[in-house]
Amino acid sequence: MKWLNVLLIFLPIAVFLEVTHGSPTLIFLSAALAILPLAGIMGQATEQLAVRAGSTVGGLLNATFGNATELIIAFFALQAGKLEVVKASIIGSMLGNLLLVMGLAVFLGGLKYKEQRFNLKSATTVASLLAISVIALMIPTIFDLAARGITPARIEALDVNLSDATAVVLILVYLAYIYFTLVSHRDILSTADDPDAHDEHEGPLWSVPYAVGVLAAATIAVAFMSEFLVGTLDAATSALGLTEFFVGLILIPIIGNAAEHAAAVLFALRNKMDLSMTISLGSTVQVALLVAPLLVLAGLLVGQPMNLVVTPLELAAIGAAVVIAGSVVRDGETNWLEGLLLLAVYVILALAVFFYPLP
Amino acid sequence: MKWLNVLLIFLPIAVFLEVTHGSPTLIFLSAALAILPLAGIMGQATEQLAVRAGSTVGGLLNATFGNATELIIAFFALQAGKLEVVKASIIGSMLGNLLLVMGLAVFLGGLKYKEQRFNLKSATTVASLLAISVIALMIPTIFDLAARGITPARIEALDVNLSDATAVVLILVYLAYIYFTLVSHRDILSTADDPDAHDEHEGPLWSVPYAVGVLAAATIAVAFMSEFLVGTLDAATSALGLTEFFVGLILIPIIGNAAEHAAAVLFALRNKMDLSMTISLGSTVQVALLVAPLLVLAGLLVGQPMNLVVTPLELAAIGAAVVIAGSVVRDGETNWLEGLLLLAVYVILALAVFFYPLP
Amino acid sequence: MKWLNVLLIFLPIAVFLEVTHGSPTLIFLSAALAILPLAGIMGQATEQLAVRAGSTVGGLLNATFGNATELIIAFFALQAGKLEVVKASIIGSMLGNLLLVMGLAVFLGGLKYKEQRFNLKSATTVASLLAISVIALMIPTIFDLAARGITPARIEALDVNLSDATAVVLILVYLAYIYFTLVSHRDILSTADDPDAHDEHEGPLWSVPYAVGVLAAATIAVAFMSEFLVGTLDAATSALGLTEFFVGLILIPIIGNAAEHAAAVLFALRNKMDLSMTISLGSTVQVALLVAPLLVLAGLLVGQPMNLVVTPLELAAIGAAVVIAGSVVRDGETNWLEGLLLLAVYVILALAVFFYPLP
Repeated sequence: MKWLNVLLIFLPIAVFLEVTHGSPTLIFLSAALAILPLAGIMGQATEQLAVRAGSTVGGLLNATFGNATELIIAFFALQAGKLEVVKASIIGSMLGNLLLVMGLAVFLGGLKYKEQRFNLKSATTVASLLAISVIALMIPTIFDLAARGITPARIEALDVNLSDATAVVLILVYLAYIYFTLVSHRDILSTADDPDAHDEHEGPLWSVPYAVGVLAAATIAVAFMSEFLVGTLDAATSALGLTEFFVGLILIPIIGNAAEHAAAVLFALRNKMDLSMTISLGSTVQVALLVAPLLVLAGLLVGQPMNLVVTPLELAAIGAAVVIAGSVVRDGETNWLEGLLLLAVYVILALAVFFYPLP
Repeated sequence: MKWLNVLLIFLPIAVFLEVTHGSPTLIFLSAALAILPLAGIMGQATEQLAVRAGSTVGGLLNATFGNATELIIAFFALQAGKLEVVKASIIGSMLGNLLLVMGLAVFLGGLKYKEQRFNLKSATTVASLLAISVIALMIPTIFDLAARGITPARIEALDVNLSDATAVVLILVYLAYIYFTLVSHRDILSTADDPDAHDEHEGPLWSVPYAVGVLAAATIAVAFMSEFLVGTLDAATSALGLTEFFVGLILIPIIGNAAEHAAAVLFALRNKMDLSMTISLGSTVQVALLVAPLLVLAGLLVGQPMNLVVTPLELAAIGAAVVIAGSVVRDGETNWLEGLLLLAVYVILALAVFFYPLP
Repeated sequence: MKWLNVLLIFLPIAVFLEVTHGSPTLIFLSAALAILPLAGIMGQATEQLAVRAGSTVGGLLNATFGNATELIIAFFALQAGKLEVVKASIIGSMLGNLLLVMGLAVFLGGLKYKEQRFNLKSATTVASLLAISVIALMIPTIFDLAARGITPARIEALDVNLSDATAVVLILVYLAYIYFTLVSHRDILSTADDPDAHDEHEGPLWSVPYAVGVLAAATIAVAFMSEFLVGTLDAATSALGLTEFFVGLILIPIIGNAAEHAAAVLFALRNKMDLSMTISLGSTVQVALLVAPLLVLAGLLVGQPMNLVVTPLELAAIGAAVVIAGSVVRDGETNWLEGLLLLAVYVILALAVFFYPLP
């Protein structure tokens, strides 16, 4: 994915535009484009450290930094009080992983191979975890929809209470999930033993100080770009004719996940569907069990209490995506038509989000 | 299914009643009964042409004309502006295929054979396609439910926009599905190689002009009967104490699908559950990907713009039916109790529709 | 489970408190604790009679008396007009079986065995039946939600009509289910041939009069305790700061099902996951097909017409629980993380119910 690094040119462009008070729309676009390669570099540096650290600590590093870009963007949006954008980006990240990434991987892989089979065992285990995690994450929304008719006045406070409690339970479950993946059942779920899992990171190992330095620099650069992105959000969306809902649900997740997306497609093109599936499913589990609850707790810290209540459209979309992904996975094999259908659902959902009226 | 042809007697009866301005209720019932054998004859003539045409073009003929009866009835209802009836008949056709047809086939087959197994491969592939297609088709309804609370005034226009866009995406997916079924993956999904698939069409081949003539005559007769049916709908439903909702959701689909229903049951009684399952699942996929979007586009042509937004009861019913059918199929085997449960859900749903209040 | 019998001490305590007009809260708690061992004794006596009666009649006895405790408690609540508590206890019983019981069994079993596999055949058959039964049971609720916006005035009467009709269909399906389980397909579903299924009932057989006597005495004692429980419900819940909704959905099901819960966990600890799964799934099917419709019909007899319409929160919770349980079962194997996730969903749901505002 080295060609992606060409986009690093947008890093100085974004800084130049910001310093010279250039057009907010151009700053927004430059920052967005600059984040794509930075996320890839963060992933690469983490991978290098992970190889040095040995498999358990390395796995932990990979798992924790895997969604770092999304977390950083969402954190700046949270601090700026754009709670609807934060929540939309959580849902959008899961939709993107389950429909766009899996859809692209299955479609493109399916054009090359007539049928792609994969080991059902790890894929269905992760699909099970996914269904349960997402349902747990959605309980505050269901509660809100169910309780809203009864006491509208008290519902805001109850939403925050239940969301905080849910976030704590989910983080505890995440710790158990990490223990499960890295210690107790690592032989089942780990893809570390598959030499192909690391193909793209071939070549000489980086020294530890160099890897740490690259990771730190890329993280800081992502942080600045995220601040630019959030700072120009209002001006850019109104100039581009987009809603914040569309930006949170569609644009930010595509920016934040691009590096992972490329990896899932690459594995599909090498007929390694297990790895491809595990990336899109596992990344979604991480968003549900770590990213979303961390943002709720971070909201308490920065004085922006955020609940986990999303719109009914988001609830329905995420439910549909989990059902569809589970249905594709339980097959045990994929073909291009399934990939095309996943992409079609993503396109129709994106159209629905595009048409969705502003409150 | 030759005994069904006895009902052809209702063809002249319906015409006689119409010409002599007889009771609308009797015209309605005669037209409904006349359509049953006509749909069977259309299927038979298409099959004959398909055998002559070779398997690819023949498959295309079968796929396209498979839902012709439903399309014709729905088109006349559309032209008459009975949009709720059209939408109800789309949903009802899918409910009928997934619950009534599959239920009858599984139940009656299960009374004869203790356990009926089937090749999971093609059945689960079609079940996957089904789940995804139906979810895509339902997005406009979910959008409407989610957005209604925000801007009730603008929602009608947005519903039409999103429905048109969804229809275009679904038709493109349908073309891909036809290519997938007939060209790229025909060996997986085709039932053409199974000699039993054509058992019921044994006997001498018809000449092409004869088959074309029969097909044309039956199609025209179905068209007239459909016009009678729609023309007497209001009078007949109020005389019979039924709602248009019940007629669209329960009666019309039973009339339009009777021939297919008989085929699915026959295959189940011969312990060919693969074929039986493929008929009810595949027919539902066709409704979602072809019939429904074609009607939306036809609505634009005849000046009756129709959206794809159905009632919450219909949304829930179709969701439940897809979950249930998927659950039965993923088993890989069926027994009479599963069939009975499918029929019980259909009966309870029909009761709910019967009790459903008029707006 | 003999240690549970220690709790029998609360039987005389509850009676003493009731006679001396003691604190309602203490009566409530004593009655609740006394029911736990009584339910176990009822199960034991039924088992003894079942062994004597031969397998078919015995199976019928077990199936019918399996949910007797829940039925008795719910019946007294019904007679007292506490319809919301009755409906909540129906839903809560299913949630408890699918999330708490299955979760505890999978979690504790998973701590002992790294992976527990089970025969998919009977488990997925029961999971299929479960999904269909629960959907059928939920149709009146879906109907109510869908129709409420149209004619709020007429909806109450329609709800009762549809619920009565649904109850009749479900009871007929239950009779078919019993015939299926005990006669037509007993070889597939029966766990009677597994010697371990009866391990805990080892020891000398009771004489029939003794077993009948014990069963009668325990049933009467449960009845009295249930009356105490319902009679002190209002006072105790307000003293304890709980809502009736919480009591019906969480507390009563735990009390009524404790004996079954223990059995499911014991089988999991002996690595007999088939039996463990069948207990939690089968018990849920019984609630949907027998307990719920019987209570609707009993409501008509005692002049407390009850519909099957539950709150949207309950509808969503039961839907989620069925999806999750199906997802865990279709895996064909379980591990402690899946159990923990089931328990986490139960905890978050219980929190949601706890926060749920009073109407």
